This record gives sequence, C-alpha cells and structure tokens, in this order.
Amino acid sequence: MDVSSVRVHCISVSLDGFASGEGQSFDAPFGHAGDRLLSWFEATRSFRLLQGMTGGTTNADDGFASRWTPGVGADIMGRNMFSPHRGPWENNDWKGWWGTEPPYHNPVFVLTHHPRPSIEMEGGTTFHFIDASPHEAVAIAREAAGELDVRVGGGPNTIRQFLAADLIDYLHVAIVPIVLGRGERLWEGLEGLEDRFVMESVTTPSGVTHLVCNHR
Amino acid sequence: MDVSSVRVHCISVSLDGFASGEGQSFDAPFGHAGDRLLSWFEATRSFRLLQGMTGGTTNADDGFASRWTPGVGADIMGRNMFSPHRGPWENNDWKGWWGTEPPYHNPVFVLTHHPRPSIEMEGGTTFHFIDASPHEAVAIAREAAGELDVRVGGGPNTIRQFLAADLIDYLHVAIVPIVLGRGERLWEGLEGLEDRFVMESVTTPSGVTHLVCNHR
Repeated sequence: MDVSSVRVHCISVSLDGFASGEGQSFDAPFGHAGDRLLSWFEATRSFRLLQGMTGGTTNADDGFASRWTPGVGADIMGRNMFSPHRGPWENNDWKGWWGTEPPYHNPVFVLTHHPRPSIEMEGGTTFHFIDASPHEAVAIAREAAGELDVRVGGGPNTIRQFLAADLIDYLHVAIVPIVLGRGERLWEGLEGLEDRFVMESVTTPSGVTHLVCNHR
Repeated sequence: MDVSSVRVHCISVSLDGFASGEGQSFDAPFGHAGDRLLSWFEATRSFRLLQGMTGGTTNADDGFASRWTPGVGADIMGRNMFSPHRGPWENNDWKGWWGTEPPYHNPVFVLTHHPRPSIEMEGGTTFHFIDASPHEAVAIAREAAGELDVRVGGGPNTIRQFLAADLIDYLHVAIVPIVLGRGERLWEGLEGLEDRFVMESVTTPSGVTHLVCNHR
C-alpha cells in the first residue's frame, strides 16, 4: 500500500548551515538572523497568499514557495517553532505566531514535553500538543492526514531529528548567501545524508540556491 | 596605485560547510572526505592540464576551474595543505603532494611555525617556508608576484584567517551536495561576510553550486 509522504518545505539555511539565528525571542523569532533567511520566501505571492495578502513575486522562488501548500493534511512542528517560551507553559495564552487564522488549515501536532489542551483556531487549524518520538508523531499525523501528506515545519532541531530517524521523504532547503556565524545548525549529525537522497539544486536570480532532496 | 588581487579559487565545501574531512594523512589528503569535495574539479580539462594530462570535461565546471591559472604570480598556502605532517619537520624529504613539477610555476609561500630551506622544483615552482602573519604573508607574496595576483590555496584554516583579516579580494567556493559531518569548517568566525562581498551563485549540471564572491 502506498503511504502518504512526509515533506519539509522552504527551510532556509545560511552558507554556514544555520537555519535559525541565536537568541530567539518574541520580537525575534529567528534570533539575530532577523528575516534574512526567509526574505526570499516572504517576497513571494505564495507566501503572501498564506497570510491573506495579495501581491508578491511570481518569480522562480515562488515556484518553490508554491509547493508548500497543496496536498498536505497534517503538520508536525517543534515546540520552538510554535513558541519563544521554554520549559513548562506559564499559562495557555500563547496561540502561536500566526494570528487568529494560521496558514495551516489542518491539524498541527506540536512536539513538547509539556502537553496542554488543544487549541482550535479559525480556518481549520487545530494545534495539538503531544509528547511523542518522531516515529510516533509521524504515525499520529499520518492518521490525521488520511490520504494526504504530512508536512514537518521546523525548527531545525526537529527537522534534524526526523531526518536522522529517516522519516522524511522530501526535503526542500533554500541556501541563502549569508554567513550567520551562530544559531541552530540544520545538518549536524546527518553525515552521509546524500546516500539516502537524490539531491538536485538550482540557483535563482534572488541568489538563493534551492536544494531539492527526494528519498531514494 | 592599483595593486594586484588576492584570490581564492576552487575551494570546495560540503553542505555543512566542511572544506576538508577529518583525519588528513599521507593516503588521505582530505581525510574521510576522500575525493568527494574535489571530484567536480578533477574531472575538468583545466585540472588535468595542470597535472600534465589530456582529456577532461569542458563543461560549465571547467569554466570555473579554468580561472585558477591565469594572472597569478605567487601562491600562499598553509602548512596543512603542503604536508600531512604536524609540528617540527622530522627531515626535509617531503616536497609536497604534487610530484617533481607542481602546478604552481611561481613562488609558493608555505606558512609554518617551523621554517626550513626553500625547495626549488621543476617548472618554476619554489616552495618558501615563512613564519608570518596573514598581512605579512600577503606583503611578501605581492612583492614576489610583481604586477600579477596572489593566490591563496588553502587549507580551510588558512583561507578563514585571510578572510577574517579582510585580505581576500576574490573568493570562489564550490558547494558540493554532500553532508560530511566532520572536518575543517570554512565559514567559522566569518559572521557577516556578505557585508564585505558581492556574492553570486550558479548551480551547474554536476550538482555543484559555484559561489563567486567579489569584494565590495
């Protein structure tokens, strides 16, 4: 039986392999990286549509950005992608970075050692908080996704763990020509990843190199 | 007065930013990386010509490889690029990896805390051993190069030091789609390098992304 795919889209890394800067906070979700890692994505029409905005580029980068949405039935993300808080929740006020109508429109499983009640948002997104291994999380998300795919959002530590556990079928990484110097590394502990994936790359005029990895 | 340029060509890094593997030895100049970092270069006609061989590809990679040679009057390299030995020289037998006629054909200044007599090789290459700072080394090599450029060869630590000291005018890096996991990092300590360089990149059909950095 064919099973649905587990996909990672639009994760951006610096030349030195950092997918997030140092010092994540409420005012700086990517730490000292600011919006430098994702500016190529945020400029696209596909990204702006996700935010309920019009406009944006329909350039080559948008060709990659547009693949984020179709065919996904459930998301998985790490606690650090959901929130700048660490440790036990002080209260249940925080509902993510994405406003009242997050761009997911399906169940989102947030990995945390501190589960809390699910949050139903507008537009079909429900955040569920689970204390689960990567394998368990994929099984839970697949069940929720039905015939559709599972998207693993981030952050870098989460993606690394899922890659290390060989749970990812499709990985799209955007290499941004900046040197961040510090932050969270994407590739750590993944020696020989090229043995498991066919990797193609293409540089777009924005200067970003899109690396597309399909599991062999 | 215009001065000659200081150039770095064909330095290859893995996706995780390693420009050499772990465990350099006589049998493994790039450690566990083997020839995976430089296979794109070694396949080119330009590289084979340097070795006195015919054949090789004249593809897009060769367009970058061919820029290694013209207009250079002196080289600088680190001790680890010259030799797999560490610490004081046991004797003066080692004359580099490159046989009797190295591909440099000009003075080559090897940075070492253990100077030894110069070695005159066939074809115009002379290895000089100097205990000098990056700034001093560039001054010495410029003097030797006359109106021609200075090429900084490697290894990664040497290039990093020269970049940190802002002594490099032109930097060509080939990003190879492999994850090495360990070795010598190229980008460490170079946060914000993009502020000093205009960076362009292009991916060739071999899968390598050529990053071309010109000092602003």
